[in-house]
Amino acid sequence: MFTIKRSQKFEYAHRLLNHPALCQYLHGHSGNAEVEIMSNTLDDQGMVEDFSILKKAMSEVLDLWDHATLLYENDPLISTFMLHQQRLYLFNEPPTAEVMARTLFNKLQDFFPGRVKRVTISETEKNQATYDRGI
Amino acid sequence: MFTIKRSQKFEYAHRLLNHPALCQYLHGHSGNAEVEIMSNTLDDQGMVEDFSILKKAMSEVLDLWDHATLLYENDPLISTFMLHQQRLYLFNEPPTAEVMARTLFNKLQDFFPGRVKRVTISETEKNQATYDRGI
Amino acid sequence: MFTIKRSQKFEYAHRLLNHPALCQYLHGHSGNAEVEIMSNTLDDQGMVEDFSILKKAMSEVLDLWDHATLLYENDPLISTFMLHQQRLYLFNEPPTAEVMARTLFNKLQDFFPGRVKRVTISETEKNQATYDRGI
Amino acid sequence: MFTIKRSQKFEYAHRLLNHPALCQYLHGHSGNAEVEIMSNTLDDQGMVEDFSILKKAMSEVLDLWDHATLLYENDPLISTFMLHQQRLYLFNEPPTAEVMARTLFNKLQDFFPGRVKRVTISETEKNQATYDRGI
Amino acid sequence: MFTIKRSQKFEYAHRLLNHPALCQYLHGHSGNAEVEIMSNTLDDQGMVEDFSILKKAMSEVLDLWDHATLLYENDPLISTFMLHQQRLYLFNEPPTAEVMARTLFNKLQDFFPGRVKRVTISETEKNQATYDRGI
Amino acid sequence: MFTIKRSQKFEYAHRLLNHPALCQYLHGHSGNAEVEIMSNTLDDQGMVEDFSILKKAMSEVLDLWDHATLLYENDPLISTFMLHQQRLYLFNEPPTAEVMARTLFNKLQDFFPGRVKRVTISETEKNQATYDRGI
Repeated sequence: MFTIKRSQKFEYAHRLLNHPALCQYLHGHSGNAEVEIMSNTLDDQGMVEDFSILKKAMSEVLDLWDHATLLYENDPLISTFMLHQQRLYLFNEPPTAEVMARTLFNKLQDFFPGRVKRVTISETEKNQATYDRGI
Repeated sequence: MFTIKRSQKFEYAHRLLNHPALCQYLHGHSGNAEVEIMSNTLDDQGMVEDFSILKKAMSEVLDLWDHATLLYENDPLISTFMLHQQRLYLFNEPPTAEVMARTLFNKLQDFFPGRVKRVTISETEKNQATYDRGI
Repeated sequence: MFTIKRSQKFEYAHRLLNHPALCQYLHGHSGNAEVEIMSNTLDDQGMVEDFSILKKAMSEVLDLWDHATLLYENDPLISTFMLHQQRLYLFNEPPTAEVMARTLFNKLQDFFPGRVKRVTISETEKNQATYDRGI
Repeated sequence: MFTIKRSQKFEYAHRLLNHPALCQYLHGHSGNAEVEIMSNTLDDQGMVEDFSILKKAMSEVLDLWDHATLLYENDPLISTFMLHQQRLYLFNEPPTAEVMARTLFNKLQDFFPGRVKRVTISETEKNQATYDRGI
Repeated sequence: MFTIKRSQKFEYAHRLLNHPALCQYLHGHSGNAEVEIMSNTLDDQGMVEDFSILKKAMSEVLDLWDHATLLYENDPLISTFMLHQQRLYLFNEPPTAEVMARTLFNKLQDFFPGRVKRVTISETEKNQATYDRGI
Repeated sequence: MFTIKRSQKFEYAHRLLNHPALCQYLHGHSGNAEVEIMSNTLDDQGMVEDFSILKKAMSEVLDLWDHATLLYENDPLISTFMLHQQRLYLFNEPPTAEVMARTLFNKLQDFFPGRVKRVTISETEKNQATYDRGI
């Protein structure tokens, strides 16, 4: 089986409400998204998919996450951020790397139905979370 | 001449008020600080300075910047952040990598007077700013 | 399925007795351990497991490997090292990356029973070994 | 199950005939090949396979790709390159990362029959393709 | 003194005519350009120069080098490449990292007169060349 | 002025006698050496020096440090290591990154008299030491 993987960085602020340690405070990361698309065969160009197509699909989400603040929809900071016209992306769960990975995975399914193998979000070089199709 | 360099990461949110592009919106970075300390001679341990000493000095500032929001003191978001007890670090200039580098440089002068050679702050892997002693 | 992965470095000396080439001589590496923990669901914090919990579990082993010498229990150098009170970690097999990966995997099973997906030890940036649960 | 992975860089020129964008023009990459070999057991040395054996097997192909030009066998530039005695490696498909990964995978099967798990070719740090044994 | 540094990758083919070893054959690299611009003071935005301005200036050259073939103007392959409408960038010296660094340095002087501190071209992660203003 | 820089890794064990913390115990690193050679002019090949020449000069020292144990000549472990025919490299100072950098610098002066600009030894990705010609 063939798989292509493309990674892309994005610069975001977030915080995890109710987190017992420092993650409860607004902070930020140079996040990295890695997306894997699979195929049993190659197209006429010898490709699973042109990397530029994958880039474009990823950007549908990553352009919204880049230079933005990612928050849980219950976060009390939201009203002030909206008043000051910040770029916000709201989740109905805490904005962890796990939740971000599943969110990106699901959005990419629209572009590559049944062919998204795995999405990984790296919060830092040390910490990352992956969502995949299971076995 | 001998120089030692130590680098350390920190995860911060910031924004640049009045920036014409996306940097005006609150976002974040996995920042990296590189500090260089110089000496013409080595101590009994064969060192410019024990790396653990340099680490401790850097942490005096970086522990305040890590998992925090760095803002210009005129930023209208500050009052809300204070109300919600966020970890803030305020500058009397825009919180650019240049300003952060000079700030860290000046703080380290207290620990290593006349021996701080250069401080570099990387906002991303591609973009960084350095403050040094000039020639 | 969700997976989180955390990596951590450690600085160790080792040697491989009977190795036909340079690995027979005592040398060292900046090793890297990557541990993956899996889960079908997320907890209330939107996490597989808090990264700090995973860090703590990994440290149970990695704190013993860091700034230490890893040797096969039959190594004739051991008595001298003990006499000079070195930090030793002994294996009943050669201290290869493969053996280290399985050792760390098995220790982590105590903390995350049935949920350790894969452990990878990188000896260098080029060479690494993985132990996983099979299929 | 145990897996070892070795990566090796190679510097190559290529182009993709009929590609709609810039890849149609001759250009180059610092490619990276990652090869994974698996085993359920370890040998007497505590290894899946000595890394030097894997390195030697990989070099059978990578020495031909390094400092060479990789082209589709129909490429009209070939005759001129042969006249000027260039180092060429020709494929009967477009020389994409996908095709390169499968080519290397198949060659390595001669050395490690049934034990090659996965081969990944990175064109750039962002874009890579993998060929594996499927499930 | 303040310095900002921006790095950018580009994918190019080249060869060094008359080189005694493998560099005489057409091959390629994922090159990296690092440009440093200096200033004694910061502007109103707290910057040496907006990174986007530096990016734009660098692109004036790097867009020509990316997905292109860089050759010495005497290279006998040029006529064939022109016939096949390749993207070529010709130098009146061998296209080494040293020559590329000086070329980019001189072009950037038009944008930042007297303020270009140093330009570094990395051919590979191991090998790089720098051109600077001397002392 | 032109400078070329080449980096090379080496895998070594060492310890720092009398160090107050963990460095007193035998441990190891994947060290990295970066050597910079300068020149005001380029040779006929458009080079400061062929990278292969620099590689060869660096190897004169690095081949002795790789897969070896680096110790202060007073270290009480030496006699046992000699008895067991280990690969040793002894310094008349503690084997710190600083001392290693100056040692490599001085050896390279034999190959490139007056043209060695700077030698940097990285113990880890975070900690490094440089020896240069001063101003």
